[in-house]
Amino acid sequence: MNSNAADPLPSWNDGPAKQGIMAFIARVTKEGSPDFLPLAERIAVHDNDGTLWPENPVPFQAAFAIDELNRRILTEPKLASDPMVQAALAGEFAKLLEGEHFDGLMQVLALTHAGMTVDEFRVAVEAWFTSAKHPRYGRPYDELTYQPMQELLCHLRANGFKNFIVSGGGADFMRVWVERVYGIPPEQVVGSTARTTFELLDSGPVLTKTLDYVFVNDREGKPVGVHQFIGRRPTICCGNSDGDHAMLQYTTINNPRPSFGLIVHHTDSEREYAYDAETKSTGKLVEALKEAPKRGWLVVNMKQDWNAIFRTE
Amino acid sequence: MNSNAADPLPSWNDGPAKQGIMAFIARVTKEGSPDFLPLAERIAVHDNDGTLWPENPVPFQAAFAIDELNRRILTEPKLASDPMVQAALAGEFAKLLEGEHFDGLMQVLALTHAGMTVDEFRVAVEAWFTSAKHPRYGRPYDELTYQPMQELLCHLRANGFKNFIVSGGGADFMRVWVERVYGIPPEQVVGSTARTTFELLDSGPVLTKTLDYVFVNDREGKPVGVHQFIGRRPTICCGNSDGDHAMLQYTTINNPRPSFGLIVHHTDSEREYAYDAETKSTGKLVEALKEAPKRGWLVVNMKQDWNAIFRTE
Repeated sequence: MNSNAADPLPSWNDGPAKQGIMAFIARVTKEGSPDFLPLAERIAVHDNDGTLWPENPVPFQAAFAIDELNRRILTEPKLASDPMVQAALAGEFAKLLEGEHFDGLMQVLALTHAGMTVDEFRVAVEAWFTSAKHPRYGRPYDELTYQPMQELLCHLRANGFKNFIVSGGGADFMRVWVERVYGIPPEQVVGSTARTTFELLDSGPVLTKTLDYVFVNDREGKPVGVHQFIGRRPTICCGNSDGDHAMLQYTTINNPRPSFGLIVHHTDSEREYAYDAETKSTGKLVEALKEAPKRGWLVVNMKQDWNAIFRTE
Repeated sequence: MNSNAADPLPSWNDGPAKQGIMAFIARVTKEGSPDFLPLAERIAVHDNDGTLWPENPVPFQAAFAIDELNRRILTEPKLASDPMVQAALAGEFAKLLEGEHFDGLMQVLALTHAGMTVDEFRVAVEAWFTSAKHPRYGRPYDELTYQPMQELLCHLRANGFKNFIVSGGGADFMRVWVERVYGIPPEQVVGSTARTTFELLDSGPVLTKTLDYVFVNDREGKPVGVHQFIGRRPTICCGNSDGDHAMLQYTTINNPRPSFGLIVHHTDSEREYAYDAETKSTGKLVEALKEAPKRGWLVVNMKQDWNAIFRTE
């Protein structure tokens, strides 16, 4: 038996993080143990941006939107005169978030995430993954998932857990590639959504994306989304920012079942990024980090606990 | 081998309906067949009211709401003076559906389905199933699932299909009992929803039911709900009314995968109920029945095709 076969988490260095994960899973899957979790209750929820893959220099879905605008400007030159398109292309994201209703962001989403069928959107996302490369790593975005977290997803699955992604990212965006990239089926994705409209055309049934009834699956929205889409309380929750704080609380506080909270702390500016108390909304990790010791949430120190960040090519 | 072990659908009489179901499942699960469905694509969606259990004399969730009002009136006598409560208790449902926003129905829902935590609601639903009995059959409502459809759910599951309930009923209502009654986990329920709110109290995390952002998972809403919750096109769709028409179309028309539509036609007034072109909104089966031959949807004649309706006690 080689060491990889013996160790389900080879990209994790030995230490309290790895031991904590292994011990929890062993404890709740041991038949006869008072902490035994019935199969049906083995629900693990995972944030995506910053937890399963990076969220820098911008969240990857924002990179997709910017690339889409750049692509479309070539054939729709009048887009270039839209001040919000200009702000997006100039990286002036604060401008997009001005105003009570985030008019700029909604305008960019209207151009890149609505007004097309779900099939057209899928094609655009797939095309982007085959062409776009991350500015720092020079690799396609879908090669940049965290290898240690991929191993954790596998180890959980091997122990009967159902992995769900619960992300502020768009459900339609993630569902295009999660099965291929994480082995997680689209029906196990909880994300931000807006409503589609259904029509039966001569060509067949068509669902068109709109921005009606936007649901933002972030912060207090995460337990709300978990309840709406999954309908039961998770027993494992992995996150990395204050956007996951409410979901960590919902999973672990006064849960009648054994439960486990994990925070990926970005501490590795050399191999990845280092941030926590930054003021930008994504990636901010202040409150959840402060509460972690009191709640027993395991804080993963990326620099120290992970011997690999990405899958080697 | 006894005959039950050999026949996965013993409550179905031999005939085109049973043969059609068996033949489709055999065809798409045969390795090497051009119609072979990969496991991930084996998604079956089932309406609930009228498809998996009766919807008469009123949909069972309406019976729950009425029983809840009757129960609460005992301790909250001022409810008795509410004209909409009076209408509900008198069975004057048309009155509840008056006006553009169905104010009466919303008032009844506000009293019985909102303003409480999801845990309190679950307790109320569980208590109802242990006490309430169907007026015609004298049995608890959850004993009245259709035995032939239970066998179909089992046969699909045994052949790698993932069964989803896609119902106009409330997701929170169904999720309390679907696992126990159908073997379908709560995360495989797509239903009507409204948003909850999340709070962390001293006692722990609390989700409170509201009537904000109501999503009615019926008619054109069903393919919209399927896309939002499941994120891919089903290959099998079972329904019984025009409320399922759009979902039948979405599943079967120009689907690049082999697909199968089934309509339970209520033709048995002796053992169950007989209705189709009735004018009441639930159970109305006119357009979908008319379109069935053109689309190749299998129409199950309850009286003729089912040798049992419910599980015998």
